[in-house]
Amino acid sequence: MTLLEQTLKRIGPVDSEAMSRARSRLERLTMPYWALGRIMDLAEELAGMTGSEKPPVGRKTMVVMAGDHGVAEESVSLYPQEVTLQMVYNFVNGGAGINALARLVSAQVHVVDMGVRGDLRALADAGKIRRVHIADGTGNMAAGPAMTRDQAVRSIEAGIEIVRELAPTTDVFGTGDMGIGNTTPSSAIVSVITGVPVEEVTGCGTGIDEERRRLKAGVIRKAIDLNRPDPDDALDILAKVGGFEIGGIAGVVLGAASIRKPVVVDGFISTAGALIAQKLSPQAASYMIAAHRSVERGHVAALERLGKKPLMDLDLRLGEGTGAALAMTIVEAAVRVLTEVATFGEAGVSEAG
Amino acid sequence: MTLLEQTLKRIGPVDSEAMSRARSRLERLTMPYWALGRIMDLAEELAGMTGSEKPPVGRKTMVVMAGDHGVAEESVSLYPQEVTLQMVYNFVNGGAGINALARLVSAQVHVVDMGVRGDLRALADAGKIRRVHIADGTGNMAAGPAMTRDQAVRSIEAGIEIVRELAPTTDVFGTGDMGIGNTTPSSAIVSVITGVPVEEVTGCGTGIDEERRRLKAGVIRKAIDLNRPDPDDALDILAKVGGFEIGGIAGVVLGAASIRKPVVVDGFISTAGALIAQKLSPQAASYMIAAHRSVERGHVAALERLGKKPLMDLDLRLGEGTGAALAMTIVEAAVRVLTEVATFGEAGVSEAG
Repeated sequence: MTLLEQTLKRIGPVDSEAMSRARSRLERLTMPYWALGRIMDLAEELAGMTGSEKPPVGRKTMVVMAGDHGVAEESVSLYPQEVTLQMVYNFVNGGAGINALARLVSAQVHVVDMGVRGDLRALADAGKIRRVHIADGTGNMAAGPAMTRDQAVRSIEAGIEIVRELAPTTDVFGTGDMGIGNTTPSSAIVSVITGVPVEEVTGCGTGIDEERRRLKAGVIRKAIDLNRPDPDDALDILAKVGGFEIGGIAGVVLGAASIRKPVVVDGFISTAGALIAQKLSPQAASYMIAAHRSVERGHVAALERLGKKPLMDLDLRLGEGTGAALAMTIVEAAVRVLTEVATFGEAGVSEAG
Repeated sequence: MTLLEQTLKRIGPVDSEAMSRARSRLERLTMPYWALGRIMDLAEELAGMTGSEKPPVGRKTMVVMAGDHGVAEESVSLYPQEVTLQMVYNFVNGGAGINALARLVSAQVHVVDMGVRGDLRALADAGKIRRVHIADGTGNMAAGPAMTRDQAVRSIEAGIEIVRELAPTTDVFGTGDMGIGNTTPSSAIVSVITGVPVEEVTGCGTGIDEERRRLKAGVIRKAIDLNRPDPDDALDILAKVGGFEIGGIAGVVLGAASIRKPVVVDGFISTAGALIAQKLSPQAASYMIAAHRSVERGHVAALERLGKKPLMDLDLRLGEGTGAALAMTIVEAAVRVLTEVATFGEAGVSEAG
């Protein structure tokens, strides 16, 4: 059995008894019934994921998956492709958005070269990043498949392996991405999986104007028409119109679900990866927490398909895991409420009459 | 000149030059333009409030104002009035929602007896709470004014004094409330100040049913008809249909604005206090940050009047400052982004082509 098959087989339902026990405590806390709303919902869900009434969430790791995209040559982004590699250096130097927000929430940042165009061996040798590097970027999906099916499997398995390695020091995973052009494959994935027309799930990415957005939607339609990804086959979708970092994110999600650890899914690109994971294992979705609603046009449809209501809506569109890092505080808040707030009985407070 | 008059006189406009400098840096950060959306808006605003491109926000204090309400005898709440006093003990013992969330964000909790029915002198003598205790609860506003105009001024000035005392150890203030029945005066204040009919700004508070909610709206209409608060006179509104803790919150907001420190406004009751503050000094609103949108029905109208878009929407309806505590993380995130993320030039990353 392959690592992917093993992992899928291990993903099971959440622990409904732990959820019941958590709910029972939450209902008796010294506050009006369920007065902390979605924080209490999340506390109950975390109990289910972890199988514990005291869900461990203190140790947080953001896995930031970087990769390049052949489709970038179709002018779908405002930025030159070399920015992917430059931003990996920025991550390593602690100067990016994800670094600032991960420090704030005391999360580790684990950067992975899933397939960045260029040579990052020196950073990998120095132990600053992990090198998977399936290829120097994907192929241009508007001219052929983005990758082979074997590469798609390898990208997902790389994510699973990373989770396994980080598991002993991680309670909660967060996903992040870096890859110039990667809203383009993400929109393709979201359109194929949700069935929503390309035009409606193609947004402005790094900030392109309306004319260029239409061009981008045309590129995505062309890629789908040419490659004909099978909407029922997640590996086929990832191979034909995906990206290495998107496969890596799918792997992180599946890996986390297989060991019953919560995974906070960042914005649009991470959600595309999460949809690939969900297609491979519908049950994996139970271990996902949607961090925020991105500005990116297709995100609402993607989140609906995932069956998740995001925790925040702050007009973010950066990726890197920034939204997921910020949402870690809400995850911790949920556990604090569940474990630290006194019940009516404990505090000697009168209940509703 | 009274303390209130002095304070109002000191409240000035935000520092537009500091805002410009902050904006200029934010625009050059290594990310697509304004890609962290509202976090960047907030960073710019914090620069304006504090007059600094490195706004200090590390030291946070939640001021939790407690008070009782004569109108509770009209059966507007599910809980008996003694819960206000019991919850003060719960705060002191660290067992309430605000304690758990304040610990999470490393905020101090400063509890104030603004007018709790019962004797909290022992806690005050032990230095566990501050005792202002204007009276043993307000009068029943459905039968007469809630308090005298002098008491209204004293409640606001108490909030100002607290801010002055805490200022040397506080960078950001957060507001919180405790008071059985206090959505009732808050709805009255919101209706009088916004002009929105009572029925539309009266919600379910601690969780009353629709029948009781209508009864509550009737009590509020009766109180307004009887007392005829002058919609142009904030002190008259507070005196006739307000509460001691609501006045205290208004004072905290005004006090913070007068010393150019940001104040994070919690949910519905805190927003009612903030509306009183805004009516006394429209410019004070520039120093307020709306933490979240409460479930409570009148909150949207209140926030609109305040001119604030809340940072979160998590179906909270607890009060105590819980939403404001959680929002402290977003405030800190804004400053981290402004001060810790590298610019394109600093990081050697290529800009948009």
